[in-house]
Amino acid sequence: MNRRTFIQQTAKAASAVPFVSLNSKSYRNTGNIKLGFIGVGLRGRSHVVQALFRDDVDITAICDIDPDAVKRTLDLFEKKGKNKPEVYTGSDYAYKELCKREDLDGIVISTPWEWHVPMSVDSMEAGKYTAVEVSATVTLQESWDLVNTYEKTGSHCMILENVCYRRDVMTILNMIRKGMFGEMLYAHCGYQHDLREVKFNDGTKPYGGGVEFGEKAFSEAKWRTQHSVDRNGDIYPTHGLGPVAHWFDINRGNKFSYLTSMATKARGLHKHIVDQGGDDHPNAKVNFKLGDVVTTTIACENGENIVLIHDTNSPRPYSLGFRAQGTKGIWMNDGNTIYLQNVSDKPHRWESFDPYEKEYDHTLWKEHAKAAENAGHGGIDFFVLRGFIEAIKDQVAPPIDVYDAAAWSAISPLSELSISRGSSPVEIPDFTRGAWKTNNRIFGLNNKY
Amino acid sequence: MNRRTFIQQTAKAASAVPFVSLNSKSYRNTGNIKLGFIGVGLRGRSHVVQALFRDDVDITAICDIDPDAVKRTLDLFEKKGKNKPEVYTGSDYAYKELCKREDLDGIVISTPWEWHVPMSVDSMEAGKYTAVEVSATVTLQESWDLVNTYEKTGSHCMILENVCYRRDVMTILNMIRKGMFGEMLYAHCGYQHDLREVKFNDGTKPYGGGVEFGEKAFSEAKWRTQHSVDRNGDIYPTHGLGPVAHWFDINRGNKFSYLTSMATKARGLHKHIVDQGGDDHPNAKVNFKLGDVVTTTIACENGENIVLIHDTNSPRPYSLGFRAQGTKGIWMNDGNTIYLQNVSDKPHRWESFDPYEKEYDHTLWKEHAKAAENAGHGGIDFFVLRGFIEAIKDQVAPPIDVYDAAAWSAISPLSELSISRGSSPVEIPDFTRGAWKTNNRIFGLNNKY
Repeated sequence: MNRRTFIQQTAKAASAVPFVSLNSKSYRNTGNIKLGFIGVGLRGRSHVVQALFRDDVDITAICDIDPDAVKRTLDLFEKKGKNKPEVYTGSDYAYKELCKREDLDGIVISTPWEWHVPMSVDSMEAGKYTAVEVSATVTLQESWDLVNTYEKTGSHCMILENVCYRRDVMTILNMIRKGMFGEMLYAHCGYQHDLREVKFNDGTKPYGGGVEFGEKAFSEAKWRTQHSVDRNGDIYPTHGLGPVAHWFDINRGNKFSYLTSMATKARGLHKHIVDQGGDDHPNAKVNFKLGDVVTTTIACENGENIVLIHDTNSPRPYSLGFRAQGTKGIWMNDGNTIYLQNVSDKPHRWESFDPYEKEYDHTLWKEHAKAAENAGHGGIDFFVLRGFIEAIKDQVAPPIDVYDAAAWSAISPLSELSISRGSSPVEIPDFTRGAWKTNNRIFGLNNKY
Repeated sequence: MNRRTFIQQTAKAASAVPFVSLNSKSYRNTGNIKLGFIGVGLRGRSHVVQALFRDDVDITAICDIDPDAVKRTLDLFEKKGKNKPEVYTGSDYAYKELCKREDLDGIVISTPWEWHVPMSVDSMEAGKYTAVEVSATVTLQESWDLVNTYEKTGSHCMILENVCYRRDVMTILNMIRKGMFGEMLYAHCGYQHDLREVKFNDGTKPYGGGVEFGEKAFSEAKWRTQHSVDRNGDIYPTHGLGPVAHWFDINRGNKFSYLTSMATKARGLHKHIVDQGGDDHPNAKVNFKLGDVVTTTIACENGENIVLIHDTNSPRPYSLGFRAQGTKGIWMNDGNTIYLQNVSDKPHRWESFDPYEKEYDHTLWKEHAKAAENAGHGGIDFFVLRGFIEAIKDQVAPPIDVYDAAAWSAISPLSELSISRGSSPVEIPDFTRGAWKTNNRIFGLNNKY
């Protein structure tokens, strides 16, 4: 692809801006893609593992303030026999030096949520393709910051929502686009995951044992748990919303219009501390603001509704609780069941989804399942990083873009707002500034994107 | 029980009124209970069948404006070798004559929704124990009318919510009361039933074939479908809400506080007409107001949330979609799965609900399962009518009362109001006028009630 085509494609993807000025320095397409990683804790390292697996990528720089995380990451390079990257560390702002590197094509950000946008903005302003973990933003202003920075710089930003690539939800996407569900009406989704042993630990192990969080804790409990103290809303919406947004063509012919949110009382985290650490543990005095289950209902411009659930403080098996429903049928994640009118054998009876998952496997999975398997981690992490890398290689917009990052993540602050107003409906901003009306689909188009 | 005890019990059940004046004429406890039936269409006849099965009940009067329904009902008596009842027919108001009968202890009302309250009020004012089908009321005023009439007359009114007696939801009730779910947080429920072939027929068969409704149709399609033309809300909430209300002690230590409601676009009924009857059928021009899926979230006074779904216009297998969740575990209807902390074998893994359903079977089912089986219709219709009859025999309040009827049914007009206001939160009236704070449980107490 020549530069002219690239600019046209970029401008088209940006949609809301007629022309995007480019910092062309970073878009070199000679030899391997050069990536830098900001944040190489548990999550960042799983991306590093995926990148090290690839022979079209070189990792030339990593950044983390935690020496142990850095050491463990360098060990991965050692083990793979790959050239060691340059290390940026020693300060919260060391990442800024990484962003300035001329050799980097893209930067992958896997840091605490509150650092996502400052780092993404710096990365984009440095002209890099930017990949940021979920949720991309914490506040509404941050969602606008991402969009504004993209529209100003032309640097792409992809939210690394791996669940978009889950095999079953991509099969459903394929079936929806074939019209097998008819006109779409309704979806359920969410993040239903007992995180009590993620939110608390003993300061040495990342998972289980101990009831510490914040400074005394290890890994995510260091920072993530504080969000359960300070906020009441769906604070982790994108694993559920990403796939549904693709099913419903959000930002591309459709958009989120408004939402209401409701929270149960907060019991689970306090109970966990008392059960595990006793009444006298100092954390037993902490007042957690986050309701144990938060339910958000979202109205879409084309008349569909979405029910989104956040449920992380209670004993329960993991489930994202997907449901896809249209005028011709319904699929449900829990129970793995489907019913399609005039297709299913018996009227009013569920069928197993298994044969459908085989028959309507998305072409992207058909093409790359083997490579994904070899890369480990169940496949979805392979696909999401691959999407980012392929976009850099082709110098095109990524298959999940900055408008997706902004809109999906914005559900968090808006649900907080709704709950703080007694479940009042809250308008969801149109981050595309009207371009949703004419934007084309960018995700799951073929065996490449 | 003597009259004095009865008055005390009645006054206690009424709660909000210090003393209830009684029309004692109807409370005769000599020999069999005498019942009258208003409405003996398909639903009414299924209650007649249950009553005819019993040897402690005589049906002395029936009422219906449809000669065919009357004939089919009399045939049931013939078949059972029972004395034929007196028939009231010929006018919409023939039922008023039935209400005046001195011999009747109770009246069972199974008529179109809009007739429930006028008939119940007349029945209660005539001093009869009154049983009314679901939903009990259509408007908010009607819910107050039921409560006010009860408090004025002392005549009991039971909503015939048969799903309250479903074996699995009673098992869950039993487990909740044993504390196995910990403190309750959250529930899902609803009415998810493809009613397209109930809402439309060919005027001769009650189910399937034809796209007529209203005058040209048969059975429920004659009147029920018009509610889908005129109303957008959860127009049939009690099958889901009844069991959850018992789980959460609604009106007895807890209450519904407020709700929001959201509806998808309306597509299914129009599509069904066009698919089955063609573009040119006159009903293809009908504008259905009812969204295909309506989601209502209800906040309870003690901090629990309920998600209630109404989904009757789309192809889908039947499911009331129950979920019960507390601080110690979760049960889900779809998939028939349960997880209880420190009880389930493996952490974070679902178990089958089957062994729990056996072990924690409610005592009411244990005691009467055999009789329920003999009575046919799957048991729940046996139990709900039995509850009504036993209350009459003991001259006590029924196990599901007028405050339940009022509160559960009121969700319909309130959800309509919320939807008409763009999903704004709507306060749910306290029909107990504060008595919920001290009311005791009345349902599922033992092997009798």
